[in-house]
Parts: sequence; C-alpha cells; structure tokens
Amino acid sequence: MSIPEKGSDPFRQGKKHNENDLPPKGQTPFRHLQHLFMTADNYETIPNFSAGIDGLLPAIAQDHVTGRVLMMAWMNRQAWDETVQTGQACYYSRSRKSLWRKGETSGHRQRVVKLQIDCDADCILMQVEQIGSACHEGYASCFFRSVNPDLSIVIQEPRLVDPSQVYGPR
Amino acid sequence: MSIPEKGSDPFRQGKKHNENDLPPKGQTPFRHLQHLFMTADNYETIPNFSAGIDGLLPAIAQDHVTGRVLMMAWMNRQAWDETVQTGQACYYSRSRKSLWRKGETSGHRQRVVKLQIDCDADCILMQVEQIGSACHEGYASCFFRSVNPDLSIVIQEPRLVDPSQVYGPR
Repeated sequence: MSIPEKGSDPFRQGKKHNENDLPPKGQTPFRHLQHLFMTADNYETIPNFSAGIDGLLPAIAQDHVTGRVLMMAWMNRQAWDETVQTGQACYYSRSRKSLWRKGETSGHRQRVVKLQIDCDADCILMQVEQIGSACHEGYASCFFRSVNPDLSIVIQEPRLVDPSQVYGPR
Repeated sequence: MSIPEKGSDPFRQGKKHNENDLPPKGQTPFRHLQHLFMTADNYETIPNFSAGIDGLLPAIAQDHVTGRVLMMAWMNRQAWDETVQTGQACYYSRSRKSLWRKGETSGHRQRVVKLQIDCDADCILMQVEQIGSACHEGYASCFFRSVNPDLSIVIQEPRLVDPSQVYGPR
C-alpha cells in the first residue's frame, strides 16, 4: 500500500505524529494491545479488518464542527485505503457489493478531517466536512428520526434537499 | 414486548411524541420507507434486526452533552428491548455470545437520554450520560487514538482510570 506523498496528504492538519506518543518497540504499557501499536514495518494491520464480519468494519462519519453523527456505513480494506489516500470518505456497499465513493452521484462528498480507530481497532470514526446532505433521503443526517420510549418515532427536522432532484425519480 | 409504564419511562424527556409528526396511516410522503413508520400495531420491527448480520445491528453511544462518540457495540433484538425498557445501554457481546449490560462490572453505566435510528433502520444512535469511562482501557472514549495519513497513530488523551483497578489484573 502506498503512503500519500508528503505535502499532498489531504487530511494532514492539526496535531502531528509524535514519536513519544508511541510505546518503545517491544515495550508497551498495554501489552495485550501490542499488536495495535504499529511501526512503519507493520502498519498494514490498522484497522483490523480480519476482526470484521466478512472483512467489513463499521465506519462512523461525524461532522467535524457540530459533532453531529451523520451516518454509519461499512468499510473493507480497499475502502479504507482509498479513504486514506484520497482524503474523501469511501465505503463498501453491502447491497451493491462494490466500493461506494460517497457523493459520487449526488455530489454530497465527505472530506475527511480526522481519522480515528477504537480500542479494539475494529471500528472507524471519521471527522468529516460534509457537502450537502449526508442522508440519501435528503436529510442532513441519516439519524433524522428519534425513537420514543413507547417506540413511536418522531422526524426531528426538515429535509435539506429533495432526493428525486439528486438521484432522479424512483 | 412490554411498553414501560407511563411515568416510569427512564428516558422520556425533551420533545414529546407528536401525532402530526407521523404520516397518516397508509399515506406517507416517503412511500418506499412506509415500513419504517410504525403504528402501535406493528412497532416490533423498529429497528430492523433482520437486516443485520446475524441479527446484530451497530449501536453508537454519543455523549449527550459534548457530542463525543464514546463507543460502538452491537445490539440484537433482546439488547434493544432491554435498553428501551431500562433506559440503560445494553449491548450484545459477540465474543461472550451474551447480553452485555454496559457497566455491570465496572459501574461505568450509560443512561440513555435519547434513542435514534437511521434512515434504513439498521443502525442505532444513543445519546447517553456516561458514568466513568466508556472504554475498557480506561479512556473517556474508545476512540482515544487518531490515525495520521501515514498510518502512524497518536494517543490523544490521558487515561481516566486504571483498567486493572476496575476489572482486576489480566
């Protein structure tokens, strides 16, 4: 896997990597997590796609300014690689069984501002700059409905765009 | 499935259910999503666990005040039911193959303030009040590491608690 050239890194901003943040090789305070602290030699295993179901891990997109959770979708290794290399969110579509370059049809792209992985390296969190609406239903977030304790649901917000204008009639 | 008694609803706060927010029966502006607009007769299918892999759906916990994403774990129908009924986050542990009442050992419980589902009803988002640290590694969030474009990682924050003090030595 190729690493983006220096200066061309699409989401390099904010805190730089600090060598002191990584435990010395072969000596980690979290011994059972040692496999997660990768060096240049073995970084390929971040995140741990072999822990996913069918090699897929959940990836969460969160608005980098408001903190709103916009959507959850799936990534395989290839989608992750493309996301890292382009700085644009790329998922794997389980229904279409192919890479899903978010916004390819709608223009509603997600520029990745920050990438994070969880403690078990089996979930991905992206801080993104969302162009347009994240949801294919035309809402700012896929989580446009809340569920009451009696399991009735409430639509919380207006649509931003008419999906038929973006994707054509269904 | 039983509905919590009125007055005992653990997370009933904020916006009340408004009949006008739901489309009239049999007449929805989102016809293809009609199955998602449940009435008292058929609410059992929210969320749509049959769409999950092995009946499991991803559930995201987000701090209801700061908006920080704390963790992602899995729910099956039973975990969802318990979460709704108790107002405390309950997941399904894939490794232990059993319900995982978050905080049962550590005391680091998550009180559910708000429940949301996404457009396809196959992902759950919870706004929670987190007691202690969400992560079993002792961090406030499981997403305590960020990934640089060169795939090196940075631990962003100090631990809140020593896991061995919470869970015993490993």
